[in-house]
Amino acid sequence: MWIDVADLEDIALGATILGTGGGGDPHVGKLVARQAIEKCGPVEMIRPDELDDDDLVLVSAQMGAPTVAVEKLPAGHEPMASVERVERELGRKADATMPMECGGINSMFPFAVAARKGIPLVNADGMGRAFPELQHETFNVYGVSGTPAALADEHGNTCLLETTDNERLEWHARGLTIRMGGVAYVTDYPMSGTEVQDTAIPGTMSLARDIGEAVRTTDLGPVAAIRAATEESIYGDPTQLFEGKIVDVRRRTEDGFVVGEVAIEGLGPDADATMEIEFQNENLGARRDGEWVATVPDLITVTDRETGEPIRTEALRYGARVSVIGIPTPEIMRTDEALDVWGPRTFGLETDFIPLTDS
Amino acid sequence: MWIDVADLEDIALGATILGTGGGGDPHVGKLVARQAIEKCGPVEMIRPDELDDDDLVLVSAQMGAPTVAVEKLPAGHEPMASVERVERELGRKADATMPMECGGINSMFPFAVAARKGIPLVNADGMGRAFPELQHETFNVYGVSGTPAALADEHGNTCLLETTDNERLEWHARGLTIRMGGVAYVTDYPMSGTEVQDTAIPGTMSLARDIGEAVRTTDLGPVAAIRAATEESIYGDPTQLFEGKIVDVRRRTEDGFVVGEVAIEGLGPDADATMEIEFQNENLGARRDGEWVATVPDLITVTDRETGEPIRTEALRYGARVSVIGIPTPEIMRTDEALDVWGPRTFGLETDFIPLTDS
Repeated sequence: MWIDVADLEDIALGATILGTGGGGDPHVGKLVARQAIEKCGPVEMIRPDELDDDDLVLVSAQMGAPTVAVEKLPAGHEPMASVERVERELGRKADATMPMECGGINSMFPFAVAARKGIPLVNADGMGRAFPELQHETFNVYGVSGTPAALADEHGNTCLLETTDNERLEWHARGLTIRMGGVAYVTDYPMSGTEVQDTAIPGTMSLARDIGEAVRTTDLGPVAAIRAATEESIYGDPTQLFEGKIVDVRRRTEDGFVVGEVAIEGLGPDADATMEIEFQNENLGARRDGEWVATVPDLITVTDRETGEPIRTEALRYGARVSVIGIPTPEIMRTDEALDVWGPRTFGLETDFIPLTDS
Repeated sequence: MWIDVADLEDIALGATILGTGGGGDPHVGKLVARQAIEKCGPVEMIRPDELDDDDLVLVSAQMGAPTVAVEKLPAGHEPMASVERVERELGRKADATMPMECGGINSMFPFAVAARKGIPLVNADGMGRAFPELQHETFNVYGVSGTPAALADEHGNTCLLETTDNERLEWHARGLTIRMGGVAYVTDYPMSGTEVQDTAIPGTMSLARDIGEAVRTTDLGPVAAIRAATEESIYGDPTQLFEGKIVDVRRRTEDGFVVGEVAIEGLGPDADATMEIEFQNENLGARRDGEWVATVPDLITVTDRETGEPIRTEALRYGARVSVIGIPTPEIMRTDEALDVWGPRTFGLETDFIPLTDS
């Protein structure tokens, strides 16, 4: 399957819905990917099982607070710089690249890397959504080492990290990201083809494209569009969780993340009810009238009530009329091992995981 | 010249006087160096001009806040770990090692590295005292790149930094040091023999030993002892700046440094006068009755009035009877280029450099 410039728009839209509020504004990433594809040609997207066992797969992603990313733009070379720093450390070239999260801007940079390096992009990722921290990867859940990992910034500074565990990788990389100005570019979890096949979440990039296309072309609203696109996927059926007007956004950029809560007053079928959503880069948990109704790792996406456009956490604003949509995550993301890494309590939410049921 | 266990005590004492309040408590460093020399034999200390032009010289030092270092003890392998990380990056072994500062604990770790690796230690350093930040090196002043640089911690985590300039090296390394718990171990400014000869401050380790021996064996007080030891050196003659009792210590651990001020009420010849000393890890400037009398980069060392023992900034305490000693720095440390890097205004002091005159 070949991905050309025309596909980027749908992938970015779908990945922002899967990004569950985070993953950053894809706009600039789209420009970086489009420029690379226009210059170097379309990107071949392959299935994980098309990798050779000992292929080297290197991911690339932006890390930092989306509030900062909005104004701290990349020079464009950073995703390549972090990939090439790891290549130099390992003494070999990547045979393929892959997103580490299928969310927002991070669905786009890997296409730039694939185009410029002339290597395929694996149709998979390590989050199945967006998550805020580097240990939030199925790669970590299922035993892959995050290091050697590289960080790069727009000035040409790089850092090669080796850590005793993946939580410490996150801790060190986050500290450096803050020192790099709040946004940096990371390549971590260098993997063999076998490791990708064993740990990645397959099919998420083509799913993002399908979701994006369905939402863009639908007349039936985003829930129906997403349902049509996810029907054959490993994700559950989407539900509309709430409809209302944003009446408060408490948002701060703290320790390198954007964190806070948004309060929504019900409209239409939800009149007289309220919803509160807590977020750390991504939406983590939603309470209806004080009761948890959706929790991480299930996807909670706030969309514009009229257009169906997803609204990221850094763009939530008072007065917006929104629909809140929940999408059940695939089984690989809700095993006990996975919930130990990204269950609600790991983020400080006072609840166990309450799985969304398919509607 | 061979350095054995018996010499370490005098070097540590002399280097703590040259450390001008900083450089950290040498006690644990002495244990690490002694253990290495007892196991691997004495260390050859060579002059910079004994290096071959293309020898590789790698420094090693502890970085962080001395207040933290007092309770966060090294496992012992960290200085080797940072040196070996840079060796691995450069693809060759160090031919010699050298202190990056001749202050406190950082006079000791390089002896452990030299003993364990069986390589000589260069009788020189890059500060001629202690300074708080990585750009405060004659190596930086006179054009050597600080990177590739490595940081290591006691758990086995490492980080290899490449930066566009040496101030950014400090910025990134400091951020990582904070994330490593407030103390880390650094190897930076990898140098050729020629670069060491062109930029290092020669003879500072043997001078530390001479000062330590003189202070330890004197009956005439520390000023006379330091004067005897520095007479033939590139340093100026020491002066007693003040004698008094500490009446206030305002000290906080902030941004990875220990910073603050100490107030001293005069005794004896200085009765009715007061002195205030500002510090960032090291003593930076001293005011007598509000007037600057000594400023960085000249050395300002607070010593115990009875024993002559230097008192480091993290150990200053109310009630201590002290003598404040000033030592003029060598010419290489007070050029215009050098003052641009570590003159008083670079630390936020509202004064130009006021050189101590030889007494």
